[in-house]
Amino acid sequence: MNPYAALSLNTKTVNSWTLKQAVDGAARAGLGAIGPWRDRVQEVGVAQAAKMVSDAGLRVSSLCRGGFLTAIDDDGLDDNRRALDEAAELGAPELVMVMGGIPDRDLIGARARVEERLASLVPYALDRGVRIALEPLHPMYVADRAVISTLGQALSMAEPHPAEAVGVVVDTFHVWWDPDLESLIATAGERGRISSYQVCDWLVPMEADPLLSRGMMGDGVIDFGSIGSWVRDAGYRGDIEVEIFNEKVWATDGDQVIETMKQRYLDLVAAPHVHENT
Amino acid sequence: MNPYAALSLNTKTVNSWTLKQAVDGAARAGLGAIGPWRDRVQEVGVAQAAKMVSDAGLRVSSLCRGGFLTAIDDDGLDDNRRALDEAAELGAPELVMVMGGIPDRDLIGARARVEERLASLVPYALDRGVRIALEPLHPMYVADRAVISTLGQALSMAEPHPAEAVGVVVDTFHVWWDPDLESLIATAGERGRISSYQVCDWLVPMEADPLLSRGMMGDGVIDFGSIGSWVRDAGYRGDIEVEIFNEKVWATDGDQVIETMKQRYLDLVAAPHVHENT
Repeated sequence: MNPYAALSLNTKTVNSWTLKQAVDGAARAGLGAIGPWRDRVQEVGVAQAAKMVSDAGLRVSSLCRGGFLTAIDDDGLDDNRRALDEAAELGAPELVMVMGGIPDRDLIGARARVEERLASLVPYALDRGVRIALEPLHPMYVADRAVISTLGQALSMAEPHPAEAVGVVVDTFHVWWDPDLESLIATAGERGRISSYQVCDWLVPMEADPLLSRGMMGDGVIDFGSIGSWVRDAGYRGDIEVEIFNEKVWATDGDQVIETMKQRYLDLVAAPHVHENT
Repeated sequence: MNPYAALSLNTKTVNSWTLKQAVDGAARAGLGAIGPWRDRVQEVGVAQAAKMVSDAGLRVSSLCRGGFLTAIDDDGLDDNRRALDEAAELGAPELVMVMGGIPDRDLIGARARVEERLASLVPYALDRGVRIALEPLHPMYVADRAVISTLGQALSMAEPHPAEAVGVVVDTFHVWWDPDLESLIATAGERGRISSYQVCDWLVPMEADPLLSRGMMGDGVIDFGSIGSWVRDAGYRGDIEVEIFNEKVWATDGDQVIETMKQRYLDLVAAPHVHENT
């Protein structure tokens, strides 16, 4: 069995690569899947991107990203419907959504807009057969990027909608600190809501730009063993995406990044039986 | 009525000032209280500091800080007993505790050590008549500074102990993002656990050093009106401490910082009736 069958390369991890390079690199390394960002897909067009991935024998684990539903003037629905179309055409089962920050000081109002606009996207997502994957971002991003800050909050926002329409993303960087993480992951699993499991590490000290502080697994302080076992115990058997925003990683040769990622995946992230079989 | 009767100057806000300068500055500005850090107190010794504050007609709102109970080798208890002694001699009703980060990758283990060591400090705190004020720090500090990240978690850790022995700090910078904040503040009030209300703003973008990203109220995006009303509705009538870590504020003349702080306090933080009476 290929020990990397569930390992997915998010295109952000090899930020200087084109989609073609990323697809070829992932295939060459024996990974099972790729998680493209929309701008990478748009470089070649959705139809061509879909063919490229399929020809390489890869799955699309998720499409990054829709969302940004908090603006006061623009409700963002048109762009999100396009993103759902793209995901459907690409064969991506999940569209990751980052919800957007606060345009003013009204956090409560911004969250209310998200709930309302999410509801209006659900029928479209069901029609396209693509799940909306709500991504809670670390609370340090609440002002400028995402008003969903915890897995609990994402689950509450998902709850009014069918599990096949709205799920949640478990990204170690964003949720590792949460004192309720174990039970929240279990709840997400019981409700069939885990859309995606993304991994990267929390660096100490943080980088000066908090957006670029995501590190390679093992370079920081996250206990991947515990979190990974909670995710598995919750029944998640999908792809595990590695998504790293980090200048040093981006300055490293892509193939070398993937090699390191594979090794750290086996050492720290993969289920123990995967490790034993290699 | 003095509109600044409940306003307290945390000595960190005027970081370049000695304790004497801070006490004089607070008194000159008509504030009701001061919140000293231990290093400022130690400059002159506890007895002298107590006399200085009392001679100036100020209250001590809280003493910053004890805690750091997560180390593997040193349990930190001796230093915390000294801090409780200092608080008692100073007349500080509350000793703020920042719990410490993780010395390894074991976040769960670090939290367990905090619970155990906290329990062993409670009888000493009761004996000294000083309450231990658990401060949840923003989740971005969990690795290097505080394994308590939410008000809910702080309340859970306080719960086994009497309300007169262990309370919680509500610091806007640390908790403003929390989707459950309103109900958590209400719960903290119902249980008689609110030790301190501290205010400062969340700047966008963050400063490169996340420790120095606390801003003057109004310079960032926090909705002080909502949070302040929740704290008042929870029954809190104690001092409101302004604690700002920020290079620009620190480079500004202390008297000018206090003037700005007073104005922003009236405009944004104080209860509406205080504002109307001025």
